[in-house]
Amino acid sequence: MVRDLPDPPAPPAASAAVLAPLLAEARRLLDQATRTLAHLCSREGGLDVAPLDDYQSPSYELAWTGAELLAAENLLLATRGGSGLDADLAVVHGIETLPAALVRLQGLFADCGLDAEEVDALITSPELAALRRHAGSHASLGAVGHAVALQGGDIAPIALEADAAMAQDAFLRFAREVVVPLAEDIHRQDLTVPESLLQPLREMGVFGLAIPESHGGSAPDGSENALTMIAVTEALSEASLAAAGSLITRPEILARALLAGGTPEQQARWLPRIARGEPLCAIAITEPDHGSDVASLTLRATPCQGGWRLDGAKTWCTFAGKAGLLMVVARTEPERGAGHKGLSLLLVEKPSYEGHDFVFDQPGDGGRLSGRAIPTIGYRGMHSFDLAFENFFVPDAGLVGGAAGRGRGFYFTMAGMVGGRMQTAARACGVMRAALKAAVRHAGDRQVFGAPLASYALTRVKFARMAGRLAASRHLTYAVGRLLEAGQGRMEASLVKLYACRSAEILSRESLQIHGGMGYAEETPASRYFVDARVLSIFEGAEETLALKVIARSMLEAALKDGRHV
Amino acid sequence: MVRDLPDPPAPPAASAAVLAPLLAEARRLLDQATRTLAHLCSREGGLDVAPLDDYQSPSYELAWTGAELLAAENLLLATRGGSGLDADLAVVHGIETLPAALVRLQGLFADCGLDAEEVDALITSPELAALRRHAGSHASLGAVGHAVALQGGDIAPIALEADAAMAQDAFLRFAREVVVPLAEDIHRQDLTVPESLLQPLREMGVFGLAIPESHGGSAPDGSENALTMIAVTEALSEASLAAAGSLITRPEILARALLAGGTPEQQARWLPRIARGEPLCAIAITEPDHGSDVASLTLRATPCQGGWRLDGAKTWCTFAGKAGLLMVVARTEPERGAGHKGLSLLLVEKPSYEGHDFVFDQPGDGGRLSGRAIPTIGYRGMHSFDLAFENFFVPDAGLVGGAAGRGRGFYFTMAGMVGGRMQTAARACGVMRAALKAAVRHAGDRQVFGAPLASYALTRVKFARMAGRLAASRHLTYAVGRLLEAGQGRMEASLVKLYACRSAEILSRESLQIHGGMGYAEETPASRYFVDARVLSIFEGAEETLALKVIARSMLEAALKDGRHV
Repeated sequence: MVRDLPDPPAPPAASAAVLAPLLAEARRLLDQATRTLAHLCSREGGLDVAPLDDYQSPSYELAWTGAELLAAENLLLATRGGSGLDADLAVVHGIETLPAALVRLQGLFADCGLDAEEVDALITSPELAALRRHAGSHASLGAVGHAVALQGGDIAPIALEADAAMAQDAFLRFAREVVVPLAEDIHRQDLTVPESLLQPLREMGVFGLAIPESHGGSAPDGSENALTMIAVTEALSEASLAAAGSLITRPEILARALLAGGTPEQQARWLPRIARGEPLCAIAITEPDHGSDVASLTLRATPCQGGWRLDGAKTWCTFAGKAGLLMVVARTEPERGAGHKGLSLLLVEKPSYEGHDFVFDQPGDGGRLSGRAIPTIGYRGMHSFDLAFENFFVPDAGLVGGAAGRGRGFYFTMAGMVGGRMQTAARACGVMRAALKAAVRHAGDRQVFGAPLASYALTRVKFARMAGRLAASRHLTYAVGRLLEAGQGRMEASLVKLYACRSAEILSRESLQIHGGMGYAEETPASRYFVDARVLSIFEGAEETLALKVIARSMLEAALKDGRHV
Repeated sequence: MVRDLPDPPAPPAASAAVLAPLLAEARRLLDQATRTLAHLCSREGGLDVAPLDDYQSPSYELAWTGAELLAAENLLLATRGGSGLDADLAVVHGIETLPAALVRLQGLFADCGLDAEEVDALITSPELAALRRHAGSHASLGAVGHAVALQGGDIAPIALEADAAMAQDAFLRFAREVVVPLAEDIHRQDLTVPESLLQPLREMGVFGLAIPESHGGSAPDGSENALTMIAVTEALSEASLAAAGSLITRPEILARALLAGGTPEQQARWLPRIARGEPLCAIAITEPDHGSDVASLTLRATPCQGGWRLDGAKTWCTFAGKAGLLMVVARTEPERGAGHKGLSLLLVEKPSYEGHDFVFDQPGDGGRLSGRAIPTIGYRGMHSFDLAFENFFVPDAGLVGGAAGRGRGFYFTMAGMVGGRMQTAARACGVMRAALKAAVRHAGDRQVFGAPLASYALTRVKFARMAGRLAASRHLTYAVGRLLEAGQGRMEASLVKLYACRSAEILSRESLQIHGGMGYAEETPASRYFVDARVLSIFEGAEETLALKVIARSMLEAALKDGRHV
């Protein structure tokens, strides 16, 4: 029968000291590939569209390799010198990550025509082999996985300042006591997030986290408040991505757009209300024929007496029914061509509706806005709407930035996008925490062939791998939050979004698998984590868009600037 | 803007000749790891439970490496000497598979304490690097992906004998004309598979495919009819895994159990009826506290006047509501201990019910059978039931094999399990075909940044990778079918089930991603392929069970028999 594992031969601290230079060497080689790819993708010293398009696939590999390495490097950095589970997870995760990343690098070198001798040397280095033989052995992984189980999957604690820590505590409690009991019904019956959940969240100030205190929010003036927002989003997402964890994203995007471009009157009128959650808000960017391609948007705003008339369609506008205020990206300046220079932001006020459909006829005005919730396999509760604007009137006061804001909607929108991606990484971390904890709990209860599933060696190794990925995602999310606080990290916010969201897919898949048949049943939360997690790599920047247009592009540009083309 | 790719520099046929010996060398190294692991897991010349449990994780890696290599080897073998897309896919897939498999092997060698010098030599071999540089380049993958798109994703044709080919044609047409129009409603409204679908399938003989002609079925006497069953299952699964593609599995398992152990009277009574689909049938094995652990089953059958009384619970009994005949694995001989020697098969007749719940009170008998469909995220249409037997009477005639069948239920059940796994590989292939075709179609229609998504280099590379995996799964499925026809391939049926089901998860995930937001909408079939595919790695043998208890075990046993322990 199943025996208990021998005493944990967990990775020794010395392993971290061996791993670090290996990761550094991989980074050096990645930089080399980046320089070469930048050279291949440039004409006359600048990146050029045609070769960038040809080299999409190597660029995609480059972005992923960069993301994987950064996650592993950061985890090791965050836990080095320490002992205990997190330090072990950093080693386990690094040993898992490095060989796979090196195989990608080999491919990248081959595809760029580079001599891969140094990659080969690293992939076959005795140091890496020794790490895999000892710290990466099945016994070592099993011991780490066992330690993960003993902690109930609650791993990778992050040291936070007092304010953020207090908020985290409060929202973790709220999530457990209020959100968890509602989450299954909201998902399975596709309900609208109820007031019984929204009202206390309003009172806790959740909608004002991105809004400075001087504008009625709770962000210390001059701070991005990124860490508190990450902690709160993660805590709520652990209970439910859809019913709670995603409520902050919309007010953040709108608030940052208003802070970037709103007139003083608009800021004074709207920011305190958004902070109070009265009205709730929604963001209407995507159009039926344009996914991540903001510059091609066609929803038309035509000037009229005292304002604008909107005509056209939007889609995937999450929470549009319940919201009383929509931020709509519209084309106000068609004469400036089809690009993003003709876009402005308009604020649309509407009644709040429950349910999956609404029609709002503007009183006496002839304008109409109708919405239909798109049924989805997960991420239910806020509902994502198809919207149709017909001759819909928006007064001049609704043009963000007034006359000076005309044609600047794209830039105002971008002001909130970084925060949206950051939040989405935090959402992914919350889902992963839920998935891992559920797997650990289930495996402790479930008897298989006469012993708890959690006592099997393979289960423990799975725990170690899942926990390593969660720890890497979590530490990187908070680290990038700190960068944002310091006014940096725009590219890294996309990178951690990319990494954490794919990781959430992987962890939720594995958690479901550990649950066996019951994981596939709707009554088991693991099935919800799985379908919810699937949206993460699609919204707030699809992974292809982030990998190519933000991460790879940024890596290649930096390499060009360095000017050290090979 | 997006330019058209240069003329397809598709992998030359010469690449296959380079790839083959590399795969052979990887196989040789895998065999070496297998022998060492067998040695580590044995005591006194035989495999031993305690070390097998300790070495679960390396065994799992062993099984996966074996599966990946066999899929790549078989695809290359099946297409060698040929030209055209399939031959290109074999090269592309082999180049994708080999480095990842070698990294697994490196880990396995490290974990088993083997010197990995030869693995290192292979992973850094100039031949492999050259393959990756040319046939595996982004340009080459893009050209192959473009060719996949030009064929609408309809790839990897299999040469079949006339009978099987005719059946395939007929069921592909039926799937397109009858199943496809019903599939979305059945899934989204969780309907029961309707008679409008079942009746024509009865007439087409679908329920008798595993039953010899001499017993009223359509299998040529003395043949397993495996290829026809694979072709039909795959064709139906392409339209809907749940509403059509899984209908054959249950009658096959029951028919094979009856053929293995039924009395002549039972065979004469039931086989022709099962073949006609009157009654439909269901298989009740799994119990709430026992997943893949058949030997621990506890549902009790107590002898009584003229028969048996059943008391206890079953779960995940698919189609139990609609079925008129259940095959129930029950413990008839508790005195033989808790293992599989005390199990027998009982045939339970019941009325056919529509819907999600039923209660059947046996007339005048005091026995009761009640059922409740378990709501699941996918695989809807047949419904999987929790069943409760209370003092339920089964006459002596329902004991499969009569008195001689007592205690042999486990063996009779096993007779159908290989076929069930084979069918599940075919089901996975059907889902993959649907997912790939949908992705190709969508990407051809969808405009992104001014050009069809399908014209982008990254999309094409994704197509090539997806198609390579589908081609490998499909060719291996049919190849194992041929082995079964020849009376072999029991282990390989589990292996291809493992490989094809995980592949279906990967392809359906990628297809959804290519669809962007619309892929997440329930009205888009890609979302159904994704949730349906997720069940495949769980049922008909969870992947952990197959990898450890069947595949790795079989590989290790074979290595021990070889007697060439290192």
